[in-house]
Amino acid sequence: MAIERIAILGAGLIGSSTGMALRRNGFSGTIVGWDRDHAQAAIALSLAAIDVVAEEPLTAAAECDLILLCGPVFSILEWLEQLATILQPHQLVTDVGSVKRILCERTTGQYNQADQPGFLPGHPMAGKEVGGAANADAELFRGAVWLFTECAGSSSMSSEAREKASEWRAWVQKFGSRILDLDPERHDELCAWVSHLPQFVSTALSALLEDRFPHDEDLRAIGGRALREMTRLGASPYSMWRDIAHTNSEAVSAALLALEQRLTHLREHLKTPELRDEFDLANRFRPGAVKKP
Amino acid sequence: MAIERIAILGAGLIGSSTGMALRRNGFSGTIVGWDRDHAQAAIALSLAAIDVVAEEPLTAAAECDLILLCGPVFSILEWLEQLATILQPHQLVTDVGSVKRILCERTTGQYNQADQPGFLPGHPMAGKEVGGAANADAELFRGAVWLFTECAGSSSMSSEAREKASEWRAWVQKFGSRILDLDPERHDELCAWVSHLPQFVSTALSALLEDRFPHDEDLRAIGGRALREMTRLGASPYSMWRDIAHTNSEAVSAALLALEQRLTHLREHLKTPELRDEFDLANRFRPGAVKKP
Repeated sequence: MAIERIAILGAGLIGSSTGMALRRNGFSGTIVGWDRDHAQAAIALSLAAIDVVAEEPLTAAAECDLILLCGPVFSILEWLEQLATILQPHQLVTDVGSVKRILCERTTGQYNQADQPGFLPGHPMAGKEVGGAANADAELFRGAVWLFTECAGSSSMSSEAREKASEWRAWVQKFGSRILDLDPERHDELCAWVSHLPQFVSTALSALLEDRFPHDEDLRAIGGRALREMTRLGASPYSMWRDIAHTNSEAVSAALLALEQRLTHLREHLKTPELRDEFDLANRFRPGAVKKP
Repeated sequence: MAIERIAILGAGLIGSSTGMALRRNGFSGTIVGWDRDHAQAAIALSLAAIDVVAEEPLTAAAECDLILLCGPVFSILEWLEQLATILQPHQLVTDVGSVKRILCERTTGQYNQADQPGFLPGHPMAGKEVGGAANADAELFRGAVWLFTECAGSSSMSSEAREKASEWRAWVQKFGSRILDLDPERHDELCAWVSHLPQFVSTALSALLEDRFPHDEDLRAIGGRALREMTRLGASPYSMWRDIAHTNSEAVSAALLALEQRLTHLREHLKTPELRDEFDLANRFRPGAVKKP
Protein backbone atom coordinates (compact mmCIF):
# COMPACT_ATOMS: atom_id res chain seq x y z
CA MET A 1 0.00 0.00 0.00
CA ALA A 2 1.18 3.52 -0.79
CA ILE A 3 -0.23 5.01 2.42
CA GLU A 4 1.65 3.62 5.41
CA ARG A 5 1.96 6.65 7.61
CA ILE A 6 -0.83 9.17 8.15
CA ALA A 7 -0.74 12.49 9.97
CA ILE A 8 -4.03 13.74 11.38
CA LEU A 9 -3.72 17.43 12.19
CA GLY A 10 -6.68 18.36 14.34
CA ALA A 11 -7.69 15.38 16.49
CA GLY A 12 -11.21 16.47 17.40
CA LEU A 13 -14.48 14.79 16.45
CA ILE A 14 -13.82 14.32 12.74
CA GLY A 15 -10.07 13.71 12.96
CA SER A 16 -10.39 11.15 15.74
CA SER A 17 -13.39 9.48 14.10
CA THR A 18 -11.34 9.12 10.92
CA GLY A 19 -8.46 7.54 12.84
CA MET A 20 -10.88 5.12 14.49
CA ALA A 21 -12.53 4.34 11.13
CA LEU A 22 -9.11 3.60 9.60
CA ARG A 23 -8.34 1.12 12.38
CA ARG A 24 -11.80 -0.44 12.36
CA ASN A 25 -11.44 -1.07 8.63
CA GLY A 26 -7.98 -2.60 8.75
CA PHE A 27 -5.42 0.16 8.36
CA SER A 28 -2.18 -1.35 9.68
CA GLY A 29 0.19 1.59 9.26
CA THR A 30 1.00 4.34 11.71
CA ILE A 31 -1.30 7.25 12.58
CA VAL A 32 0.38 10.32 14.02
CA GLY A 33 -1.95 12.85 15.59
CA TRP A 34 -1.69 16.44 16.70
CA ASP A 35 -4.10 18.96 18.13
CA ARG A 36 -3.43 22.46 19.38
CA ASP A 37 -5.46 21.41 22.42
CA HIS A 38 -3.21 18.80 24.04
CA ALA A 39 -6.13 17.31 25.93
CA GLN A 40 -7.84 16.43 22.63
CA ALA A 41 -4.73 14.67 21.36
CA ALA A 42 -4.49 12.75 24.64
CA ILE A 43 -8.12 11.61 24.33
CA ALA A 44 -7.53 10.60 20.70
CA LEU A 45 -4.54 8.54 21.83
CA SER A 46 -6.52 6.92 24.64
CA LEU A 47 -9.20 5.94 22.09
CA ALA A 48 -6.53 4.47 19.80
CA ALA A 49 -7.69 6.91 17.12
CA ILE A 50 -3.99 7.76 16.78
CA ASP A 51 -0.83 5.81 17.67
CA VAL A 52 1.44 8.69 18.55
CA VAL A 53 0.98 12.30 19.59
CA ALA A 54 3.25 14.47 17.45
CA GLU A 55 5.47 17.06 19.13
CA GLU A 56 5.10 19.50 16.28
CA PRO A 57 2.60 19.24 13.43
CA LEU A 58 4.70 20.30 10.44
CA THR A 59 7.62 18.02 11.26
CA ALA A 60 5.20 15.14 11.76
CA ALA A 61 3.47 15.89 8.47
CA ALA A 62 6.78 15.95 6.61
CA GLU A 63 7.33 12.28 7.55
CA CYS A 64 3.91 11.00 6.43
CA ASP A 65 2.47 9.71 3.15
CA LEU A 66 -0.92 11.29 3.73
CA ILE A 67 -1.70 14.40 5.74
CA LEU A 68 -5.33 14.82 6.81
CA LEU A 69 -6.25 18.36 7.85
CA CYS A 70 -9.21 18.58 10.24
CA GLY A 71 -10.45 21.84 11.68
CA PRO A 72 -12.06 25.16 10.86
CA VAL A 73 -11.47 26.43 7.32
CA PHE A 74 -8.93 29.13 8.21
CA SER A 75 -6.73 26.67 10.11
CA ILE A 76 -6.83 24.32 7.11
CA LEU A 77 -5.80 27.22 4.88
CA GLU A 78 -2.90 28.08 7.17
CA TRP A 79 -1.68 24.47 7.21
CA LEU A 80 -1.97 24.20 3.44
CA GLU A 81 0.21 27.26 2.98
CA GLN A 82 2.84 26.08 5.45
CA LEU A 83 2.88 22.50 4.15
CA ALA A 84 3.29 23.57 0.51
CA THR A 85 6.92 24.52 1.12
CA ILE A 86 7.75 21.47 3.24
CA LEU A 87 6.20 18.49 1.51
CA GLN A 88 7.52 16.43 -1.41
CA PRO A 89 5.68 15.56 -4.66
CA HIS A 90 4.98 12.00 -3.49
CA GLN A 91 2.99 13.23 -0.48
CA LEU A 92 -0.75 13.90 -0.49
CA VAL A 93 -2.71 16.40 1.60
CA THR A 94 -6.43 15.99 2.05
CA ASP A 95 -8.88 17.71 4.38
CA VAL A 96 -12.39 17.65 5.80
CA GLY A 97 -13.19 21.37 5.62
CA SER A 98 -16.74 22.64 5.13
CA VAL A 99 -15.90 25.20 2.41
CA LYS A 100 -13.86 24.27 -0.63
CA ARG A 101 -13.56 27.02 -3.25
CA ILE A 102 -11.28 29.17 -1.14
CA LEU A 103 -8.92 26.22 -0.57
CA CYS A 104 -8.42 25.76 -4.29
CA GLU A 105 -8.13 29.50 -4.93
CA ARG A 106 -5.54 30.10 -2.23
CA THR A 107 -3.36 27.10 -3.07
CA THR A 108 -3.24 27.60 -6.83
CA GLY A 109 0.36 27.18 -7.97
CA GLN A 110 1.45 25.46 -4.77
CA TYR A 111 0.01 21.95 -5.21
CA ASN A 112 -0.75 19.39 -7.88
CA GLN A 113 2.04 19.98 -10.36
CA ALA A 114 4.44 17.08 -10.91
CA ASP A 115 7.07 18.71 -8.69
CA GLN A 116 4.63 19.71 -5.95
CA PRO A 117 2.77 17.77 -3.28
CA GLY A 118 -0.75 16.65 -4.11
CA PHE A 119 -3.90 18.14 -2.59
CA LEU A 120 -7.26 16.40 -2.73
CA PRO A 121 -9.96 18.53 -1.05
CA GLY A 122 -12.52 16.43 0.81
CA HIS A 123 -15.61 16.92 2.95
CA PRO A 124 -17.44 14.15 4.79
CA MET A 125 -21.10 15.11 5.25
CA ALA A 126 -21.19 13.78 8.79
CA GLY A 127 -20.81 15.37 12.16
CA LYS A 128 -22.46 16.05 15.46
CA GLU A 129 -23.53 19.21 17.18
CA VAL A 130 -20.96 18.37 19.86
CA GLY A 131 -17.31 18.37 18.92
CA GLY A 132 -14.25 16.87 20.56
CA ALA A 133 -12.36 13.59 20.42
CA ALA A 134 -14.47 12.26 23.30
CA ASN A 135 -17.44 12.07 20.92
CA ALA A 136 -15.50 10.32 18.15
CA ASP A 137 -17.06 7.28 16.53
CA ALA A 138 -15.56 4.81 14.06
CA GLU A 139 -18.99 4.50 12.43
CA LEU A 140 -19.61 8.25 12.05
CA PHE A 141 -19.17 8.12 8.28
CA ARG A 142 -21.26 5.04 7.56
CA GLY A 143 -24.08 5.89 5.20
CA ALA A 144 -22.83 9.45 4.74
CA VAL A 145 -21.67 11.09 1.53
CA TRP A 146 -17.97 12.02 1.40
CA LEU A 147 -17.45 14.80 -1.10
CA PHE A 148 -14.29 15.37 -3.08
CA THR A 149 -13.76 18.61 -4.98
CA GLU A 150 -10.61 18.39 -7.08
CA CYS A 151 -9.08 21.78 -7.86
CA ALA A 152 -8.71 22.83 -11.49
CA GLY A 153 -5.40 21.59 -12.86
CA SER A 154 -5.02 18.76 -10.39
CA SER A 155 -4.63 16.31 -13.27
CA SER A 156 -0.96 17.32 -13.33
CA MET A 157 -0.43 15.77 -9.88
CA SER A 158 2.56 13.42 -9.51
CA SER A 159 1.77 9.76 -10.09
CA GLU A 160 2.78 8.90 -6.50
CA ALA A 161 0.39 11.46 -5.07
CA ARG A 162 -2.30 10.28 -7.48
CA GLU A 163 -1.86 6.72 -6.27
CA LYS A 164 -2.34 7.91 -2.69
CA ALA A 165 -5.45 9.83 -3.71
CA SER A 166 -6.97 6.64 -5.16
CA GLU A 167 -6.05 4.75 -2.04
CA TRP A 168 -7.59 7.41 0.20
CA ARG A 169 -10.81 7.22 -1.80
CA ALA A 170 -10.82 3.47 -1.22
CA TRP A 171 -10.42 4.00 2.55
CA VAL A 172 -13.32 6.43 2.56
CA GLN A 173 -15.48 3.80 0.89
CA LYS A 174 -14.40 1.27 3.51
CA PHE A 175 -15.62 3.71 6.17
CA GLY A 176 -19.08 3.15 4.67
CA SER A 177 -19.27 6.49 2.89
CA ARG A 178 -20.48 7.10 -0.64
CA ILE A 179 -18.12 9.26 -2.68
CA LEU A 180 -19.47 12.14 -4.71
CA ASP A 181 -17.24 14.39 -6.82
CA LEU A 182 -18.27 18.03 -7.24
CA ASP A 183 -16.75 21.24 -8.54
CA PRO A 184 -15.54 23.36 -5.62
CA GLU A 185 -17.98 26.13 -6.60
CA ARG A 186 -20.96 23.80 -6.80
CA HIS A 187 -19.90 22.23 -3.51
CA ASP A 188 -20.01 25.59 -1.75
CA GLU A 189 -23.35 26.49 -3.32
CA LEU A 190 -25.04 23.19 -2.42
CA CYS A 191 -23.56 23.11 1.09
CA ALA A 192 -24.82 26.65 1.69
CA TRP A 193 -28.32 25.28 1.18
CA VAL A 194 -28.23 21.85 2.81
CA SER A 195 -25.74 22.38 5.60
CA HIS A 196 -24.95 26.03 6.31
CA LEU A 197 -28.52 27.35 5.99
CA PRO A 198 -29.94 24.71 8.39
CA GLN A 199 -27.19 25.59 10.89
CA PHE A 200 -27.81 29.33 10.80
CA VAL A 201 -31.60 28.87 10.96
CA SER A 202 -31.22 26.61 13.98
CA THR A 203 -28.86 29.12 15.62
CA ALA A 204 -31.23 32.02 14.91
CA LEU A 205 -34.28 30.13 16.21
CA SER A 206 -32.45 29.00 19.36
CA ALA A 207 -31.08 32.49 20.01
CA LEU A 208 -34.52 34.03 19.47
CA LEU A 209 -36.18 31.63 21.92
CA GLU A 210 -33.45 32.19 24.52
CA ASP A 211 -33.83 35.94 24.13
CA ARG A 212 -37.63 35.95 24.34
CA PHE A 213 -38.14 33.23 26.95
CA PRO A 214 -34.92 33.14 28.98
CA HIS A 215 -36.30 31.35 32.04
CA ASP A 216 -39.60 29.93 30.82
CA GLU A 217 -39.67 26.33 32.00
CA ASP A 218 -43.12 25.75 30.49
CA LEU A 219 -41.81 26.62 27.03
CA ARG A 220 -38.94 24.19 27.41
CA ALA A 221 -41.23 21.47 28.80
CA ILE A 222 -43.78 21.79 26.03
CA GLY A 223 -41.32 21.63 23.16
CA GLY A 224 -41.44 18.16 21.65
CA ARG A 225 -39.48 16.44 18.93
CA ALA A 226 -40.14 19.28 16.46
CA LEU A 227 -38.48 21.87 18.67
CA ARG A 228 -35.64 19.55 19.67
CA GLU A 229 -34.80 18.81 16.06
CA MET A 230 -35.10 22.38 14.85
CA THR A 231 -32.82 23.68 17.61
CA ARG A 232 -30.39 20.76 17.99
CA LEU A 233 -27.74 22.57 15.94
CA GLY A 234 -28.17 25.58 18.22
CA ALA A 235 -25.57 23.78 20.35
CA SER A 236 -22.95 24.07 17.61
CA PRO A 237 -19.92 26.16 18.55
CA TYR A 238 -19.18 29.54 17.00
CA SER A 239 -15.53 28.53 16.63
CA MET A 240 -16.41 26.12 13.84
CA TRP A 241 -19.00 28.25 12.08
CA ARG A 242 -17.19 31.59 12.09
CA ASP A 243 -14.88 30.39 9.32
CA ILE A 244 -17.76 29.06 7.24
CA ALA A 245 -19.63 32.34 7.63
CA HIS A 246 -16.50 34.17 6.43
CA THR A 247 -15.49 31.91 3.58
CA ASN A 248 -18.89 31.08 2.08
CA SER A 249 -20.69 34.27 2.98
CA GLU A 250 -22.02 35.06 -0.48
CA ALA A 251 -23.80 31.73 -0.96
CA VAL A 252 -24.98 31.65 2.68
CA SER A 253 -26.32 35.21 2.41
CA ALA A 254 -28.26 34.34 -0.71
CA ALA A 255 -29.79 31.26 0.92
CA LEU A 256 -30.71 33.16 4.09
CA LEU A 257 -32.30 35.99 2.12
CA ALA A 258 -34.33 33.51 0.08
CA LEU A 259 -35.60 31.85 3.25
CA GLU A 260 -36.46 35.18 4.84
CA GLN A 261 -38.54 36.06 1.79
CA ARG A 262 -40.18 32.65 1.82
CA LEU A 263 -41.15 33.03 5.48
CA THR A 264 -42.57 36.48 4.76
CA HIS A 265 -44.62 35.03 1.92
CA LEU A 266 -45.92 32.23 4.13
CA ARG A 267 -46.73 34.67 6.94
CA GLU A 268 -48.70 36.89 4.57
CA HIS A 269 -50.66 33.88 3.33
CA LEU A 270 -51.48 32.10 6.59
CA LYS A 271 -55.16 32.50 5.81
CA THR A 272 -55.16 32.19 2.03
CA PRO A 273 -55.16 29.10 -0.22
CA GLU A 274 -51.53 29.87 -1.15
CA LEU A 275 -50.58 28.20 2.10
CA ARG A 276 -51.70 24.94 0.51
CA ASP A 277 -49.23 25.48 -2.34
CA GLU A 278 -46.38 25.82 0.16
CA PHE A 279 -47.39 22.60 1.90
CA ASP A 280 -47.74 20.81 -1.46
CA LEU A 281 -44.25 21.89 -2.53
CA ALA A 282 -42.83 20.92 0.88
CA ASN A 283 -44.58 17.53 0.65
CA ARG A 284 -42.89 16.97 -2.71
CA PHE A 285 -39.50 17.65 -1.13
CA ARG A 286 -40.32 15.35 1.78
CA PRO A 287 -42.54 12.65 0.34
CA GLY A 288 -43.80 9.72 2.37
CA ALA A 289 -46.46 11.48 4.39
CA VAL A 290 -49.75 9.65 4.63
CA LYS A 291 -52.09 12.29 3.28
CA LYS A 292 -54.66 12.07 6.07
CA PRO A 293 -57.50 12.94 5.88
CA MET B 1 -64.82 3.93 37.58
CA ALA B 2 -66.85 6.81 36.20
CA ILE B 3 -65.58 6.37 32.64
CA GLU B 4 -66.83 3.09 31.24
CA ARG B 5 -67.66 4.02 27.69
CA ILE B 6 -65.51 6.30 25.54
CA ALA B 7 -66.23 7.74 22.09
CA ILE B 8 -63.22 8.64 19.96
CA LEU B 9 -64.33 10.92 17.14
CA GLY B 10 -61.51 11.03 14.62
CA ALA B 11 -59.65 7.72 14.60
CA GLY B 12 -56.42 8.85 12.95
CA LEU B 13 -52.94 8.92 14.44
CA ILE B 14 -53.78 10.60 17.75
CA GLY B 15 -57.24 9.12 18.23
CA SER B 16 -56.10 5.56 17.52
CA SER B 17 -52.93 5.98 19.58
CA THR B 18 -55.10 7.12 22.51
CA GLY B 19 -57.34 4.07 22.13
CA MET B 20 -54.31 1.79 22.08
CA ALA B 21 -52.80 3.58 25.09
CA LEU B 22 -56.04 3.13 27.02
CA ARG B 23 -55.97 -0.60 26.36
CA ARG B 24 -52.27 -0.97 27.03
CA ASN B 25 -52.78 0.67 30.41
CA GLY B 26 -55.75 -1.39 31.50
CA PHE B 27 -58.93 0.35 30.38
CA SER B 28 -61.59 -2.37 30.47
CA GLY B 29 -64.61 -0.42 29.24
CA THR B 30 -65.85 0.04 25.68
CA ILE B 31 -64.25 2.30 23.08
CA VAL B 32 -66.48 3.39 20.24
CA GLY B 33 -64.70 4.94 17.28
CA TRP B 34 -65.70 6.98 14.30
CA ASP B 35 -63.86 8.66 11.45
CA ARG B 36 -65.23 10.44 8.42
CA ASP B 37 -62.78 8.29 6.45
CA HIS B 38 -64.21 4.79 6.91
CA ALA B 39 -60.85 3.23 6.04
CA GLN B 40 -59.27 4.92 9.07
CA ALA B 41 -61.98 3.59 11.38
CA ALA B 42 -61.46 0.11 9.91
CA ILE B 43 -57.71 0.28 10.56
CA ALA B 44 -58.34 1.51 14.11
CA LEU B 45 -60.67 -1.46 14.66
CA SER B 46 -58.13 -3.90 13.24
CA LEU B 47 -55.50 -2.51 15.64
CA ALA B 48 -57.93 -2.89 18.57
CA ALA B 49 -57.62 0.85 19.15
CA ILE B 50 -61.43 0.83 19.20
CA ASP B 51 -63.94 -1.95 19.90
CA VAL B 52 -66.75 -0.80 17.65
CA VAL B 53 -67.09 1.46 14.64
CA ALA B 54 -69.96 3.86 15.24
CA GLU B 55 -72.59 4.33 12.54
CA GLU B 56 -73.05 7.97 13.33
CA PRO B 57 -70.77 10.06 15.57
CA LEU B 58 -73.32 12.15 17.50
CA THR B 59 -75.53 9.22 18.44
CA ALA B 60 -72.48 7.28 19.56
CA ALA B 61 -71.24 10.24 21.60
CA ALA B 62 -74.62 10.60 23.33
CA GLU B 63 -74.18 7.10 24.81
CA CYS B 64 -70.66 7.61 26.19
CA ASP B 65 -69.24 8.91 29.45
CA LEU B 66 -66.28 10.57 27.80
CA ILE B 67 -66.08 11.94 24.27
CA LEU B 68 -62.58 12.50 22.87
CA LEU B 69 -62.46 14.81 19.87
CA CYS B 70 -59.46 14.26 17.59
CA GLY B 71 -58.90 16.21 14.40
CA PRO B 72 -58.22 19.62 12.94
CA VAL B 73 -59.37 22.56 15.06
CA PHE B 74 -62.40 23.49 12.95
CA SER B 75 -63.78 19.96 13.06
CA ILE B 76 -63.38 19.96 16.86
CA LEU B 77 -65.24 23.27 17.00
CA GLU B 78 -68.05 21.88 14.89
CA TRP B 79 -68.39 18.80 17.09
CA LEU B 80 -68.35 20.90 20.24
CA GLU B 81 -71.22 23.01 18.95
CA GLN B 82 -73.28 20.00 17.91
CA LEU B 83 -72.60 18.02 21.08
CA ALA B 84 -73.52 20.92 23.38
CA THR B 85 -77.23 20.40 22.62
CA ILE B 86 -77.13 16.61 22.82
CA LEU B 87 -75.05 15.73 25.85
CA GLN B 88 -76.08 15.58 29.52
CA PRO B 89 -74.35 17.26 32.48
CA HIS B 90 -72.73 14.02 33.61
CA GLN B 91 -70.85 13.66 30.31
CA LEU B 92 -67.39 15.06 29.62
CA VAL B 93 -65.94 16.19 26.32
CA THR B 94 -62.20 16.51 25.89
CA ASP B 95 -60.05 17.02 22.82
CA VAL B 96 -56.51 16.96 21.44
CA GLY B 97 -56.63 20.10 19.30
CA SER B 98 -53.54 22.21 18.66
CA VAL B 99 -55.18 25.59 19.37
CA LYS B 100 -57.18 26.21 22.51
CA ARG B 101 -58.33 29.81 22.99
CA ILE B 102 -60.88 29.67 20.20
CA LEU B 103 -62.42 26.50 21.70
CA CYS B 104 -63.11 28.24 25.00
CA GLU B 105 -64.32 31.43 23.29
CA ARG B 106 -66.76 29.66 20.99
CA THR B 107 -68.21 27.33 23.62
CA THR B 108 -68.75 29.94 26.32
CA GLY B 109 -72.22 29.44 27.80
CA GLN B 110 -72.59 25.93 26.34
CA TYR B 111 -70.43 23.85 28.67
CA ASN B 112 -69.29 23.66 32.27
CA GLN B 113 -72.33 24.93 34.12
CA ALA B 114 -74.01 22.46 36.47
CA ASP B 115 -76.79 21.76 33.95
CA GLN B 116 -74.43 21.48 30.96
CA PRO B 117 -71.95 18.84 29.82
CA GLY B 118 -68.33 19.32 30.87
CA PHE B 119 -65.52 20.31 28.54
CA LEU B 120 -61.86 19.86 29.41
CA PRO B 121 -59.63 21.15 26.58
CA GLY B 122 -56.50 19.03 26.15
CA HIS B 123 -53.46 18.86 23.91
CA PRO B 124 -50.87 16.07 23.92
CA MET B 125 -47.52 17.42 22.69
CA ALA B 126 -46.85 14.30 20.66
CA GLY B 127 -47.32 13.40 17.05
CA LYS B 128 -45.60 12.36 13.89
CA GLU B 129 -45.16 14.01 10.53
CA VAL B 130 -47.23 11.16 9.09
CA GLY B 131 -50.84 10.84 10.12
CA GLY B 132 -53.33 8.01 9.95
CA ALA B 133 -54.39 5.12 12.16
CA ALA B 134 -51.80 2.89 10.50
CA ASN B 135 -49.07 4.87 12.28
CA ALA B 136 -50.76 4.71 15.68
CA ASP B 137 -48.66 3.70 18.66
CA ALA B 138 -49.74 2.92 22.23
CA GLU B 139 -46.48 4.49 23.44
CA LEU B 140 -46.81 7.72 21.46
CA PHE B 141 -47.50 9.77 24.59
CA ARG B 142 -44.80 8.32 26.84
CA GLY B 143 -42.46 11.06 28.00
CA ALA B 144 -44.55 13.78 26.34
CA VAL B 145 -46.32 16.67 28.01
CA TRP B 146 -50.13 16.59 27.86
CA LEU B 147 -51.49 20.09 28.24
CA PHE B 148 -54.85 20.95 29.74
CA THR B 149 -56.28 24.44 29.36
CA GLU B 150 -59.44 24.78 31.44
CA CYS B 151 -61.81 27.46 30.15
CA ALA B 152 -62.70 30.35 32.45
CA GLY B 153 -65.73 29.42 34.55
CA SER B 154 -65.22 25.69 34.31
CA SER B 155 -65.24 25.44 38.10
CA SER B 156 -69.04 25.37 37.84
CA MET B 157 -68.91 22.01 36.05
CA SER B 158 -71.22 19.27 37.40
CA SER B 159 -69.63 16.99 39.96
CA GLU B 160 -70.12 13.96 37.69
CA ALA B 161 -68.30 15.66 34.82
CA ARG B 162 -65.60 16.82 37.25
CA GLU B 163 -65.10 13.26 38.43
CA LYS B 164 -64.61 12.15 34.83
CA ALA B 165 -62.15 14.98 34.25
CA SER B 166 -60.04 13.75 37.19
CA GLU B 167 -60.24 10.22 35.90
CA TRP B 168 -59.21 11.30 32.40
CA ARG B 169 -56.19 13.11 33.85
CA ALA B 170 -55.24 9.90 35.62
CA TRP B 171 -55.45 7.97 32.35
CA VAL B 172 -53.23 10.49 30.64
CA GLN B 173 -50.64 10.00 33.35
CA LYS B 174 -50.88 6.24 32.87
CA PHE B 175 -50.06 6.82 29.18
CA GLY B 176 -46.70 8.10 30.46
CA SER B 177 -47.45 11.76 29.85
CA ARG B 178 -46.70 14.62 32.21
CA ILE B 179 -49.65 16.93 32.74
CA LEU B 180 -49.18 20.68 32.54
CA ASP B 181 -52.05 23.13 33.05
CA LEU B 182 -51.95 26.41 31.15
CA ASP B 183 -54.29 29.30 30.41
CA PRO B 184 -55.74 28.88 26.91
CA GLU B 185 -54.12 32.19 25.84
CA ARG B 186 -50.71 31.23 27.16
CA HIS B 187 -51.07 27.81 25.55
CA ASP B 188 -51.63 29.35 22.13
CA GLU B 189 -48.75 31.79 22.56
CA LEU B 190 -46.25 29.12 23.69
CA CYS B 191 -47.40 26.62 21.06
CA ALA B 192 -46.96 29.27 18.36
CA TRP B 193 -43.27 29.37 19.30
CA VAL B 194 -42.41 25.75 20.05
CA SER B 195 -44.73 23.88 17.70
CA HIS B 196 -46.31 26.08 15.03
CA LEU B 197 -43.20 28.13 14.20
CA PRO B 198 -41.00 25.01 13.75
CA GLN B 199 -43.67 23.55 11.45
CA PHE B 200 -43.96 26.61 9.25
CA VAL B 201 -40.18 27.07 9.09
CA SER B 202 -39.76 23.45 8.05
CA THR B 203 -42.50 23.84 5.45
CA ALA B 204 -40.97 27.06 4.07
CA LEU B 205 -37.46 25.55 3.93
CA SER B 206 -38.70 22.37 2.23
CA ALA B 207 -40.82 24.35 -0.27
CA LEU B 208 -37.89 26.66 -1.03
CA LEU B 209 -35.52 23.76 -1.69
CA GLU B 210 -38.09 21.98 -3.87
CA ASP B 211 -38.65 25.19 -5.82
CA ARG B 212 -34.96 25.97 -6.32
CA PHE B 213 -33.61 22.46 -6.82
CA PRO B 214 -36.53 20.41 -8.13
CA HIS B 215 -34.51 17.54 -9.61
CA ASP B 216 -31.08 17.96 -8.06
CA GLU B 217 -30.07 14.51 -6.87
CA ASP B 218 -26.72 15.81 -5.59
CA LEU B 219 -28.46 18.22 -3.25
CA ARG B 220 -30.64 15.44 -1.88
CA ALA B 221 -27.67 13.07 -1.55
CA ILE B 222 -25.48 15.57 0.27
CA GLY B 223 -28.06 16.56 2.85
CA GLY B 224 -27.23 14.85 6.10
CA ARG B 225 -28.94 14.68 9.47
CA ALA B 226 -29.17 18.48 9.70
CA LEU B 227 -31.22 18.76 6.53
CA ARG B 228 -33.33 15.69 7.35
CA GLU B 229 -34.26 17.08 10.75
CA MET B 230 -34.91 20.62 9.56
CA THR B 231 -37.20 19.43 6.76
CA ARG B 232 -38.85 16.39 8.40
CA LEU B 233 -42.00 18.36 9.17
CA GLY B 234 -42.13 19.40 5.52
CA ALA B 235 -44.02 16.13 5.10
CA SER B 236 -46.87 17.35 7.34
CA PRO B 237 -50.22 17.67 5.58
CA TYR B 238 -51.87 21.00 4.86
CA SER B 239 -55.19 19.57 6.05
CA MET B 240 -53.98 19.60 9.65
CA TRP B 241 -52.13 22.91 9.58
CA ARG B 242 -54.67 25.04 7.73
CA ASP B 243 -56.84 25.22 10.84
CA ILE B 244 -53.90 26.12 13.06
CA ALA B 245 -52.85 28.86 10.64
CA HIS B 246 -56.41 30.23 10.77
CA THR B 247 -57.08 29.95 14.48
CA ASN B 248 -53.72 31.02 15.89
CA SER B 249 -52.66 33.37 13.13
CA GLU B 250 -51.84 36.34 15.32
CA ALA B 251 -49.36 34.50 17.54
CA VAL B 252 -47.92 32.55 14.59
CA SER B 253 -47.47 35.76 12.56
CA ALA B 254 -45.65 37.43 15.42
CA ALA B 255 -43.31 34.46 15.83
CA LEU B 256 -42.61 34.25 12.09
CA LEU B 257 -41.91 37.97 11.85
CA ALA B 258 -39.52 37.79 14.79
CA LEU B 259 -37.63 34.92 13.16
CA GLU B 260 -37.47 36.73 9.82
CA GLN B 261 -35.92 39.72 11.57
CA ARG B 262 -33.51 37.48 13.45
CA LEU B 263 -32.37 35.82 10.22
CA THR B 264 -31.87 39.23 8.62
CA HIS B 265 -29.77 40.30 11.59
CA LEU B 266 -27.68 37.15 11.39
CA ARG B 267 -27.23 37.55 7.63
CA GLU B 268 -26.05 41.13 8.04
CA HIS B 269 -23.53 40.03 10.65
CA LEU B 270 -22.06 36.91 9.06
CA LYS B 271 -18.64 38.57 9.14
CA THR B 272 -18.87 40.58 12.34
CA PRO B 273 -18.33 39.55 15.98
CA GLU B 274 -22.09 39.84 16.56
CA LEU B 275 -22.36 36.38 15.02
CA ARG B 276 -20.61 35.12 18.14
CA ASP B 277 -23.37 36.63 20.31
CA GLU B 278 -26.00 34.72 18.33
CA PHE B 279 -24.12 31.45 18.78
CA ASP B 280 -23.62 32.17 22.49
CA LEU B 281 -27.34 32.79 23.00
CA ALA B 282 -28.20 29.69 20.97
CA ASN B 283 -25.73 27.64 23.02
CA ARG B 284 -27.50 28.81 26.18
CA PHE B 285 -30.83 27.57 24.79
CA ARG B 286 -29.23 24.27 23.79
CA PRO B 287 -26.54 23.60 26.36
CA GLY B 288 -24.45 20.47 26.40
CA ALA B 289 -22.13 21.27 23.54
CA VAL B 290 -18.52 20.48 24.18
CA LYS B 291 -16.95 23.87 23.52
CA LYS B 292 -14.18 22.57 21.33
CA PRO B 293 -12.16 25.29 19.60
